[in-house]
Amino acid sequence: MTSPKLYLEDLVPGQIFESGSHTLTAEEIVEFAGRFDPQFFHLDHEAAKASLFGGLAASGWHVASTTMRLMVQSSVIAGGLIGAGAEIAWPRPTRPGDTLRVITEIVEVTPSRSRPERGMVLVRSKTLNQLDEIVQTMASRMVVPRRTPAETAP
Amino acid sequence: MTSPKLYLEDLVPGQIFESGSHTLTAEEIVEFAGRFDPQFFHLDHEAAKASLFGGLAASGWHVASTTMRLMVQSSVIAGGLIGAGAEIAWPRPTRPGDTLRVITEIVEVTPSRSRPERGMVLVRSKTLNQLDEIVQTMASRMVVPRRTPAETAP
Repeated sequence: MTSPKLYLEDLVPGQIFESGSHTLTAEEIVEFAGRFDPQFFHLDHEAAKASLFGGLAASGWHVASTTMRLMVQSSVIAGGLIGAGAEIAWPRPTRPGDTLRVITEIVEVTPSRSRPERGMVLVRSKTLNQLDEIVQTMASRMVVPRRTPAETAP
Repeated sequence: MTSPKLYLEDLVPGQIFESGSHTLTAEEIVEFAGRFDPQFFHLDHEAAKASLFGGLAASGWHVASTTMRLMVQSSVIAGGLIGAGAEIAWPRPTRPGDTLRVITEIVEVTPSRSRPERGMVLVRSKTLNQLDEIVQTMASRMVVPRRTPAETAP
């Protein structure tokens, strides 16, 4: 990556970042589920038809992990993407062959009171499929370093 | 699994479920990060020392996915564990060699008003390491089937 890195001072609410894309294959969906979420609706096409999903669907944690990869690969935030926590929802299943991409918006930038060298940033991301349908929403709090440490009270 | 399955009617606030355990090796941490969270503090022991984590740490999504596996393997909920969303936090890093287990509590059981055959259950889970330190907290909303469909208004 040759883009200049962004520090806390460079981020403002409303800024939007867009990731590249990744297509989830049936093989990837089944392999991830076998390791981390071994339930029949993530593992077996035929059996999944009788489930709430009506067919094979990716584990939500697979969608979240793929979202993370797309965000990391496209990120220009200095210090990396370090999340303290997240609120996540999966309004619709992700299917084999779906091509996912992530749109992330900076919502809030808060310099730390106790740590002059960093701050917290609230971001909202939407993970979309190839039909622009939202398959995941996430609000996450991230630790971002300052370019120049803040002046502290004497 | 030979345990009887639990339906919505069988769940009450305060019930507690405990999972088995899993030890995350350095190899697993690095392999997961290479695929889903390729940042130096999840990939490289030496380089990670200079990071906020002070040493190699598992991706939060790896901790979440491992938590899911432990919950699925020990679950006796009918219909499987189907999450609509979750609120997640990682108060402390997970290190190579940490042995994780999950304690889950039923917080709220809400029959669906529009779907007589199911309801929503709010659960809180804590993922603990071998020192009983909390490495992840999660509140999640799950869809759980009823044993007997509710009576609906005529």
